[in-house]
Amino acid sequence: MSEHAHDRIRAVVWNDDALELLDQRLLPAVERRLRLGTAAGVAQAIRDMVVRGAPAIGIAAAYGVVLAARARFAEAPAGWRARIGADLDLLAAARPTAVNLSWAVARMRATIERAPEGDPCPRLLAEANAILAEDIAANRRMGALGAALIEAGGSVLTHCNAGSLATGGFGTALGVIRTAHAAGRIDAVYAGETRPWLQGARLTAWELVRDGIPVTLLADGAAAYLLCQGRVRWVIVGADRIAANGDTANKIGTYGLAVLARQHGVGFMVVAPVSTIDMSLADGAGIPIEERPAAEVLDLAGARVAAAGAGAWNPAFDVTPAALIDAIVTERGVVHAPDAAGMAALLAG
Amino acid sequence: MSEHAHDRIRAVVWNDDALELLDQRLLPAVERRLRLGTAAGVAQAIRDMVVRGAPAIGIAAAYGVVLAARARFAEAPAGWRARIGADLDLLAAARPTAVNLSWAVARMRATIERAPEGDPCPRLLAEANAILAEDIAANRRMGALGAALIEAGGSVLTHCNAGSLATGGFGTALGVIRTAHAAGRIDAVYAGETRPWLQGARLTAWELVRDGIPVTLLADGAAAYLLCQGRVRWVIVGADRIAANGDTANKIGTYGLAVLARQHGVGFMVVAPVSTIDMSLADGAGIPIEERPAAEVLDLAGARVAAAGAGAWNPAFDVTPAALIDAIVTERGVVHAPDAAGMAALLAG
Repeated sequence: MSEHAHDRIRAVVWNDDALELLDQRLLPAVERRLRLGTAAGVAQAIRDMVVRGAPAIGIAAAYGVVLAARARFAEAPAGWRARIGADLDLLAAARPTAVNLSWAVARMRATIERAPEGDPCPRLLAEANAILAEDIAANRRMGALGAALIEAGGSVLTHCNAGSLATGGFGTALGVIRTAHAAGRIDAVYAGETRPWLQGARLTAWELVRDGIPVTLLADGAAAYLLCQGRVRWVIVGADRIAANGDTANKIGTYGLAVLARQHGVGFMVVAPVSTIDMSLADGAGIPIEERPAAEVLDLAGARVAAAGAGAWNPAFDVTPAALIDAIVTERGVVHAPDAAGMAALLAG
Repeated sequence: MSEHAHDRIRAVVWNDDALELLDQRLLPAVERRLRLGTAAGVAQAIRDMVVRGAPAIGIAAAYGVVLAARARFAEAPAGWRARIGADLDLLAAARPTAVNLSWAVARMRATIERAPEGDPCPRLLAEANAILAEDIAANRRMGALGAALIEAGGSVLTHCNAGSLATGGFGTALGVIRTAHAAGRIDAVYAGETRPWLQGARLTAWELVRDGIPVTLLADGAAAYLLCQGRVRWVIVGADRIAANGDTANKIGTYGLAVLARQHGVGFMVVAPVSTIDMSLADGAGIPIEERPAAEVLDLAGARVAAAGAGAWNPAFDVTPAALIDAIVTERGVVHAPDAAGMAALLAG
């Protein structure tokens, strides 16, 4: 697949001793990389959605830890491990819902604890690079596993962006879609535009057009009418956090799509690496749901569109009960009709 | 209720021998009236969504017939009735889904056929004024009937705009909401922003803020998460065409809300005058669904937002099966759990 553009789309890149993030707020009109040299800068970029997507923000935070270690060690080689704690906490708290963020920071914290004396940066950079490389490999594996579930013919619907931009590369839901399309199993891809940030219109359409995969956008409200027409076989989405019983937090609108998919006999597939699974939560009720500023709904393209005096409710995620999910696809395997036993078996396997 | 702003919101006004339409494409930022002197201008304004909402476009078309008759009679008093046929057809065909448009034109056509010799304009203007006045009265009656279905406490969700702007005045769904709010039965109103035209954000919020009714906007995709939280008692919407069995075409997104309302035990109420009912169609499968330009989804605030090469599917309406509707509220009465028998009984009553 080396001819495909997704091999060149990299949301998170370590380059010349700094972290470079493709500024996803500007896509597709402008392709600009933001160069960051501090952990605080990385945390701010995650909060501001320069980088988004659960795996991608985890990877960005891992590199943020490298930047923090460099600064703390440069301040004073003695005691840097104690002083980096605040940086780790800042990075882990940048956004609340995606568990990959705290997972990546925890993994870097463990590497810090094991690091020998001397400059920790080479060891930490190697670990961050490993997180990135493992994520891409996991996406390739999930792509194959998920595509195998799709019978040839018909189309699929995706929501938000779970592509190269949301991960180290290749993508979770879009990894499955790319693999299935290359295998001739998918005729067409529908993408919900995904208000208020329009990740579907701005990011998913951009990725698929670059790969030469036909993509048709629709307003989020049109999904029900699309699904009742019988052309869509699967709804395929990513995830920000999966509880121990398979309940899944993902971009706002996902839960409604799951209800509608079940209503119309359409399959509902969640694609996410095991780093997205939070076994500390029995079910989805415990997943913290980020509420973002009302202005994201009240404004349009930077200008106020709603009448002054109107309020807005702007949850960034919702929770889909496991009972509405037909398959959770991870790099370790597929959990069909997920429940607590199936999820535990996956992680034990 | 004379202190309320809805008494001053008039989308369609006959003023000084011309039709004035509040340009709804510019609201809420700019309140500008477009003055139209020809039937062709009225048809174009309906196509371009200067005026929208099923009852409002019917009323606008009725005044368009007045303008057509004036022009045809001025051309030559002899034979104007034959020559106005093309104008009537043009107005009736301006948009395909809302049956109120052809209903209003048919009523004006019958008035033309009954008109005595001489200048037909006073008679036709009186008929158009009657259509407008009857619509407002119908909305007041529906407001009372619909509000009576709502138990005190809790909130409601509406979609698109079925308010003063979509009707002669007061509104269908918003008429119920206004009446219920005045009676203390509603604590809060949620409004879906309603992409791609954002009638919820631009129009419904504007109307409710002017009336002092608290309104909270949400992205259309957030409705499922809202409904699962148990605060919303009713989803209340208007209609563009209701088939003989109660199947209802309304703004895209309505069908999904109906599925979600049923899933969560939330009531689903359609509010529309009997002029919206099309007894010539046995069910919703026969309702023509307008597909609007892809650019309405691909662009945002006049600028392309999606990647070049992406397509879009942009149906303006969808059809909600009667089985998902708890009540159809008309000025003649309420049909609970609508079906063909219930609808027939309503119209016979």
